[in-house]
Amino acid sequence: MARARMIIVGFGNIGRGLAETLVKKEGALKARGLDLAVVAVCEVGGCVVDESGINLNTLLSGKAEWGGRKTLEAIENVEADIVVELTPGNIKTGEPGLTHIKTALESGKHVVTSNKSPLAVAYSRLTRLASRNGLQLRFEATVGGAIPVISTFRNELKVNSAMNIYGILNGTTNYILSKMSEEGVDLQAALKEAQDLGLAESNPEYDINGTDTAAKVVILANALMGMDVRLADIRIEGIKRVTPEAIELAKEYGYTIKLVGDVAAKEVGPMLVPIDHPLNVRGSLNAILIETDIAGKITMVGHGAGPRETSSALMADIIAIAECL
Amino acid sequence: MARARMIIVGFGNIGRGLAETLVKKEGALKARGLDLAVVAVCEVGGCVVDESGINLNTLLSGKAEWGGRKTLEAIENVEADIVVELTPGNIKTGEPGLTHIKTALESGKHVVTSNKSPLAVAYSRLTRLASRNGLQLRFEATVGGAIPVISTFRNELKVNSAMNIYGILNGTTNYILSKMSEEGVDLQAALKEAQDLGLAESNPEYDINGTDTAAKVVILANALMGMDVRLADIRIEGIKRVTPEAIELAKEYGYTIKLVGDVAAKEVGPMLVPIDHPLNVRGSLNAILIETDIAGKITMVGHGAGPRETSSALMADIIAIAECL
Repeated sequence: MARARMIIVGFGNIGRGLAETLVKKEGALKARGLDLAVVAVCEVGGCVVDESGINLNTLLSGKAEWGGRKTLEAIENVEADIVVELTPGNIKTGEPGLTHIKTALESGKHVVTSNKSPLAVAYSRLTRLASRNGLQLRFEATVGGAIPVISTFRNELKVNSAMNIYGILNGTTNYILSKMSEEGVDLQAALKEAQDLGLAESNPEYDINGTDTAAKVVILANALMGMDVRLADIRIEGIKRVTPEAIELAKEYGYTIKLVGDVAAKEVGPMLVPIDHPLNVRGSLNAILIETDIAGKITMVGHGAGPRETSSALMADIIAIAECL
Repeated sequence: MARARMIIVGFGNIGRGLAETLVKKEGALKARGLDLAVVAVCEVGGCVVDESGINLNTLLSGKAEWGGRKTLEAIENVEADIVVELTPGNIKTGEPGLTHIKTALESGKHVVTSNKSPLAVAYSRLTRLASRNGLQLRFEATVGGAIPVISTFRNELKVNSAMNIYGILNGTTNYILSKMSEEGVDLQAALKEAQDLGLAESNPEYDINGTDTAAKVVILANALMGMDVRLADIRIEGIKRVTPEAIELAKEYGYTIKLVGDVAAKEVGPMLVPIDHPLNVRGSLNAILIETDIAGKITMVGHGAGPRETSSALMADIIAIAECL
């Protein structure tokens, strides 16, 4: 039985989704020889720590006792194998996740994260730090939510080089553009609906203006295409200037308008996509196309967000590390 | 440097495509510490054998000397790590691939294959034989061509259970139905065009009548859903009764008609697919949707055939074995 001890940093929707999947799959994981224990969970206000393994049901029901221990101190000093960093990040500074991840790697702990910001800000610095310390830094959940695009390309398309990667990397804007196309409503009305459904954050500025998509382009560029780019290198246009009339006109010619991130072009912007193209996916779905030299074009479609869906990517990363411990 | 010695059985289009990729990627593979040598290539008429490694350029240019050695004797007696089985198979008997694969596994050699027939006929027998002998039997190329659906589900979606898998698993019929839909032509005209383009075999009976799709359903059922089924367990209807009029009518309601293999239903048949559904892919593309309990629906789209594209899946399997030698 391989045992991995985790510290979860950030216990919002994504953290709770991960805890729920850990509870649901405990038996199945044990059956494949994996004993995954959460030894600390940290939030802004403090931490729950139990080095023999936190009872996640108690935690999820709100009955756990949150002590005053600070996050960084817990990352450094609680004995654990993996830090799972799930805080919301500032896209300009990468904080607080950047410091969490650095501290974890400097304390000899592997890192799994769903937090784009630290990687968009400091991809090469963090990956070098990890490899210098013989540790893994895994971030499947940062791009495409449940879609395992990074590990599929790295592990299952091994002989291939990526000539380009492009796709629909933000579910909120895809929901908005799909609504505008299907119902002829304008951006504000579609955004309101997305917010009512909990698909868009109360401040959806970074979705609408393309910054969120650009952060994912940066991660794909660095991780899968051997580029060395930051957010500032990406030309970004959001969807503010997309009108129902433009979408209607595109439709007449067999196209739709999607917000596409294009890695090789280092560009994010609204683009015409043929109606029957694999990237024309509805609602809040994401779709990522990899152009390879041997396999040709491979497209992956799935849920780009959602706590349960994101936990699939986090668990894949956690299991990959646990199996090597 | 990890060295793997391979015997290639079957040197038609797929075998040549693999040899071309091995030549093209030799440097890249060496750079990642992999030295892949082909020590024997067998065809119906004889074998080329060189235990120090065959010069693949010479082989591809038709200048190699084919000796009279028999395939089974070579599989048994040539020193090698992996047998790559690429012959065309009889879907009812699985031969000659079935005997090739059994002989390889009984001689202590791992197997990589693109040949559906032996697996459709004897999946559980062959996988048991492999595991009893501590050997790998890998078959990514049998389903979805370049799409790494089997290993992506097994390795990169590890916490998930598959509730169902369904999709478009035959490129020839997808090309035919796409043509019928786009140009209003009938099945015979579309088939003729597919044959002229080299997409359909001169005897496309197993494509048209759904048997090829059903063989892939059998493999997915056994490999990814823990089922124990054979070809005879699948209800099969082909595309012969699909008319341009039926497709036209479907279109009016926002649908198209695709030949879909449905694993949980153990069924192959023409089905209505919404125009904007991820499975509505054009031309000879394949599309496979996995319904999971945690990640939700994940769809993978790509080239289901083609010598170069198929070599991507074969190489992924070969590299996975070579890295464990």
